[in-house]
Amino acid sequence: MTLALLFGGQSYEHEISIVSAITLKTVLTCKLEFIFCDKDRNFYQIPEKSMKASHFANGDYRKDRLLYLEKDGFVFHGFLGKSKKLDFDAVVNLIHGADGEDGKIASLFEFFNIPFIGPRIEASVLSYSKTLTKALASSAKIETLPFETLTPDQRLLKKLSYPLIVKPDHLGSSIGVSIVRSKEDLEYALDVAFAFDNKVIVEPFISAVKEYNLAGCLSANGMEFSIVEAPQKKELLDFDKKYLDFSRSGQVQEAKISDELKNGLYEAFSALYKPMFEGALVRCDFFVIDDKILLNEINPCPGSLAHYLFSDFNALIPRLLKALPKERKINVEYNYINSIRQAKGKASYR
Amino acid sequence: MTLALLFGGQSYEHEISIVSAITLKTVLTCKLEFIFCDKDRNFYQIPEKSMKASHFANGDYRKDRLLYLEKDGFVFHGFLGKSKKLDFDAVVNLIHGADGEDGKIASLFEFFNIPFIGPRIEASVLSYSKTLTKALASSAKIETLPFETLTPDQRLLKKLSYPLIVKPDHLGSSIGVSIVRSKEDLEYALDVAFAFDNKVIVEPFISAVKEYNLAGCLSANGMEFSIVEAPQKKELLDFDKKYLDFSRSGQVQEAKISDELKNGLYEAFSALYKPMFEGALVRCDFFVIDDKILLNEINPCPGSLAHYLFSDFNALIPRLLKALPKERKINVEYNYINSIRQAKGKASYR
Repeated sequence: MTLALLFGGQSYEHEISIVSAITLKTVLTCKLEFIFCDKDRNFYQIPEKSMKASHFANGDYRKDRLLYLEKDGFVFHGFLGKSKKLDFDAVVNLIHGADGEDGKIASLFEFFNIPFIGPRIEASVLSYSKTLTKALASSAKIETLPFETLTPDQRLLKKLSYPLIVKPDHLGSSIGVSIVRSKEDLEYALDVAFAFDNKVIVEPFISAVKEYNLAGCLSANGMEFSIVEAPQKKELLDFDKKYLDFSRSGQVQEAKISDELKNGLYEAFSALYKPMFEGALVRCDFFVIDDKILLNEINPCPGSLAHYLFSDFNALIPRLLKALPKERKINVEYNYINSIRQAKGKASYR
Repeated sequence: MTLALLFGGQSYEHEISIVSAITLKTVLTCKLEFIFCDKDRNFYQIPEKSMKASHFANGDYRKDRLLYLEKDGFVFHGFLGKSKKLDFDAVVNLIHGADGEDGKIASLFEFFNIPFIGPRIEASVLSYSKTLTKALASSAKIETLPFETLTPDQRLLKKLSYPLIVKPDHLGSSIGVSIVRSKEDLEYALDVAFAFDNKVIVEPFISAVKEYNLAGCLSANGMEFSIVEAPQKKELLDFDKKYLDFSRSGQVQEAKISDELKNGLYEAFSALYKPMFEGALVRCDFFVIDDKILLNEINPCPGSLAHYLFSDFNALIPRLLKALPKERKINVEYNYINSIRQAKGKASYR
C-alpha cells in the first residue's frame, strides 16, 4: 500500500500542515509519497530525504518535480512532454484550514476521481464554518454553546454576557480568536476577527470547562474510536502551542472518565459523523458541562490525523481505505436529445 | 470581452446544460468560447459551428481539442507538448445539477484562480441541498414550507399530512420527485427518491400555490433585479417541460403584482443573496401564501442564466464581472518555521 501525503496549501495553517506531514512520515509504516501544495497552489513531488521544514521555508522545494492534477491522478511531464502518473493507492488530505478543509481539495479529488482520506465537500463546508457546525450539531440533536453571529454591518450583541470568546467564523486555527472580558475590549476583538473573515461568531467563554477529544472513522469494521483525551490546555491554544501539538509523535494518556460518559461521547460522535463524514478520520472536541455533552468543534483533517490517539494507527488506515465512499455514477445517454431529434425532427437543437 | 461558456458535467442535467449553452450562444453578443465537460469529466474546446445537440449525442465532440485545467486557466497541448492558454475574461458556469451546483466547479475555479460567474463553494453546498437551503433561509429570516428530512434508516413521517411532495435532497432537476396523496403511495415515492439520494425531503404539496420567480445579482451598480415572473406550471415541472424551459430565447411577461409584493420579493432575495452568492446570477423561486413570502428554492446556476427575465441581459454581464468576489490572499512567510529554527536551534524540524 502506498499513501500520498498532501500538505501545504493557500492557508493560514500552511506551516502547521508541513509539520503535520513530517510527523506522520515518522509514524506511518507503509510506502509514502509526499505531495506539497505551495502557497501559489503548484504541486511538487517531495523526495523523502527532503521532508524537513527548511526545505520549504528556503524555497528549495521549487527544484523538485512539478505535478499536475489530471483525471485519475497526479501526473508529471517526462521526456518530450510525455506525462506519467504518480503511483499511490490514496491521498491523505493533510492540508489544514483553507483549501484542505473548506471543500476545495475534496472537490478536486472527487472531480478528478482520486481516492482520498479526508472530508467530502458537504462535510468540509459545514465543519469549516463555526455557524454551520452549530446547525449540523442541532440537526444531529447534539447541543452546543449559545452563540451570536456578527457581520461587519451588524456588530451588536443581543443576548450574550461577558466573558466572551470571539472567533472568525471560518478559520481552523486560533488566529483572530480573542477572549473578551468587558464591553470595552469587544470592539478591538471584533476588528481583529473581521480582519480575517466577514463573519464572526461570539460564544460565552467558560474557563476551566471540561474538554474531551475523541477521534474516529467509519472503517470496514464499522465505527472505530480512539481513546478519549482530556487535553491539557492553557486558556487558549495559541499558534505556537498548536504548532507543537501538531508535531506530537508519542501516544497520549487516556482520560479517566466513566463508561457512561465514554459511551455518550461515542454516540454523539456517531450522530455527527454519519453519513456526511464518511471517508474522513475526524476528531471531535467536546465540552462537558453539568454532565451534558456539547460539541465544541469538528476537525475533519486533524493535525497528523490524530494518530497519537490510536493504539494501532497503522492497522486502522487500510480498514478506513476499504470504506471510502464511492461516487454515485450518473449515466448520460443523451436519451432526451435523441428522442427530441427523432420524434420532432425539428431543426433548432439538432 | 470574451466569455467561456462551461457546460455538460457528470450530472443528471447534463443534456439540459447543453441546451442551456446553445441557447445562451444565441443571446450573448460578446465573443464566446465553448468548453464542454463530458460525462467522464474531460474538457473540450468546441468550435462555435459545432454547438448543436447532435455533436454531443453522437460523440463527435471527442475529435475536438482537449483542454486541461491548470493554474490561471484552461490549456491545450500544442506542438511537442508545449501548452498554450485558452483566452477569455471569465467562465460562465452553466453546468446544472451535480458538478456545477454542488461546489465542485466553484472549487476548481477558486483553486486554479480562474474568474467565473457562478456560485462560490459555500453558496453551492447550501443551495444544492434542500435541507440546507431551509437552514439558510431561516438564518436570513425568510420562511419556507414545513418539512421533514428522511434517511434510508428513518423513513417514518412525524408531523406532515397529505398531500405531500417527496424530493431527493440533493438533485437540482425534477428527477425522483413525486406528489403523494395517500399513505399507500408514500413507500413507492420514497423508494424512487432514495434511488437518487440518501437523504429525502418531504413537504406539504399545495396545488395552485402562487409562485413567483425573480433573478438578480450584485453588480458594480449594486443589487440588480430581473422582472418578476409568475411561471405557468403544470403540477410538476417534468423533465421534458424543463428541457423546453431551458431553451427559452424570447423574453417573458412581467407578473402583475403590487409594488408592495415586488419590494418584498426584492428584500427577501437580497437577504438570501448577500454576501454568500456574490459572483453568481441567481434565480430565487418564491411561494406566496396568505400574503406571506416563502422561499421555495434558490437556483444558483439557472437555465441559460435566466437571461429571458432581464430587459438588457448583455449590458448586465459586464457589470456583474466587475463585482466578482476576490479571494482573500493569505501570506505564507514561514515565520513560525524560521523562528523555531533560529531560536531553538533544534534538529528535529530543520
